[in-house]
Amino acid sequence: MNYPNGKKGTIAKYARNKQSATPNQAFSNRGMTLEEDINETNRYYLETNKAIIHKKPTPVQIVKVNYPKRSAAVITEAYFKQASTTDYNGLYRNKYIDFEAKETKNKTLFPLANIHEHQLTHMHSIIDHGGICFLLIRFTFYQETYLLPAEKLFKHWDDKLKGGRKSIPYEQICLEGYKIPFQYQARIDYLAIIDKLYF
Amino acid sequence: MNYPNGKKGTIAKYARNKQSATPNQAFSNRGMTLEEDINETNRYYLETNKAIIHKKPTPVQIVKVNYPKRSAAVITEAYFKQASTTDYNGLYRNKYIDFEAKETKNKTLFPLANIHEHQLTHMHSIIDHGGICFLLIRFTFYQETYLLPAEKLFKHWDDKLKGGRKSIPYEQICLEGYKIPFQYQARIDYLAIIDKLYF
Repeated sequence: MNYPNGKKGTIAKYARNKQSATPNQAFSNRGMTLEEDINETNRYYLETNKAIIHKKPTPVQIVKVNYPKRSAAVITEAYFKQASTTDYNGLYRNKYIDFEAKETKNKTLFPLANIHEHQLTHMHSIIDHGGICFLLIRFTFYQETYLLPAEKLFKHWDDKLKGGRKSIPYEQICLEGYKIPFQYQARIDYLAIIDKLYF
Repeated sequence: MNYPNGKKGTIAKYARNKQSATPNQAFSNRGMTLEEDINETNRYYLETNKAIIHKKPTPVQIVKVNYPKRSAAVITEAYFKQASTTDYNGLYRNKYIDFEAKETKNKTLFPLANIHEHQLTHMHSIIDHGGICFLLIRFTFYQETYLLPAEKLFKHWDDKLKGGRKSIPYEQICLEGYKIPFQYQARIDYLAIIDKLYF
């Protein structure tokens, strides 16, 4: 596997999930967004009756709606609202699952500004009440996706609040997170990692 | 408690939850929709750290968005989409909670047409995977709200598929469901019933 920034040596040693370097580049997935990959994966989970996990609809403040005769209602004025929770939740093996997904073009770090404070509060609550909570982070430049357990994220967030750095270095995510290999069917099979971590 | 349709005698004998006849009519809640009551209740659960349950945003298909300079993006064309799941889900005492809420003005029955087939499929999956799933039904005429466990709903749905009736009689909901008393803080404290049924 080649890392375009020439860091091959240092990064490879952090890459836990070696089998992710699949020989079939058809799985390399360029062009699909993380959201599309997750939606595909969740659809596969649903079809195979493995898990029931959905993306929540985008929160929208609806202001004006027209009701034309004999056709569907049209929303003609609406605004995006900030989400107060994470984007995805559901049920897997009797457990409540909750996660947020973020892509970054950054090559060296994941900016914590990508996560809102109320989302972090929400994630803390999920853990407190016995749910499974994590972050899926994609570094688009490397086309790598990592699962970072919420507990690891909290540590970095707390560091930030204490005046520490406002981001998580890429190398740290390689170390503390779990790389999700691209696959043909469950494109990013994050539940395989959840199986290992929580069951 | 007076039942405006004069059925007092017959209905009272089905009413399981006698303490719902609160002497304080300030709790009788007229004018609030079921959705508003549930949102208030969920807010109370969240503030008191009892449970994390949210309403999912209304699913909207966004077609056109304007990005005016120096102000928020405006959605100028969008359409309502049919929900593929239930409206509410979350986490309570380590358990995944999932429910749908419906109001009816009907005095004698709850029409099953209020529930979509894919919602029913979703509810079956939730039960299969170890979640807690139910329906909150409000009869607005009586200002009564019932929790009906999904398993009871399935029975009536199956009857309908076999050519049986397309609705659940009000009396049957009184018998098979659990009446939720109006309260001041957790306005409709449905988790009190979940405590008794599942823990």
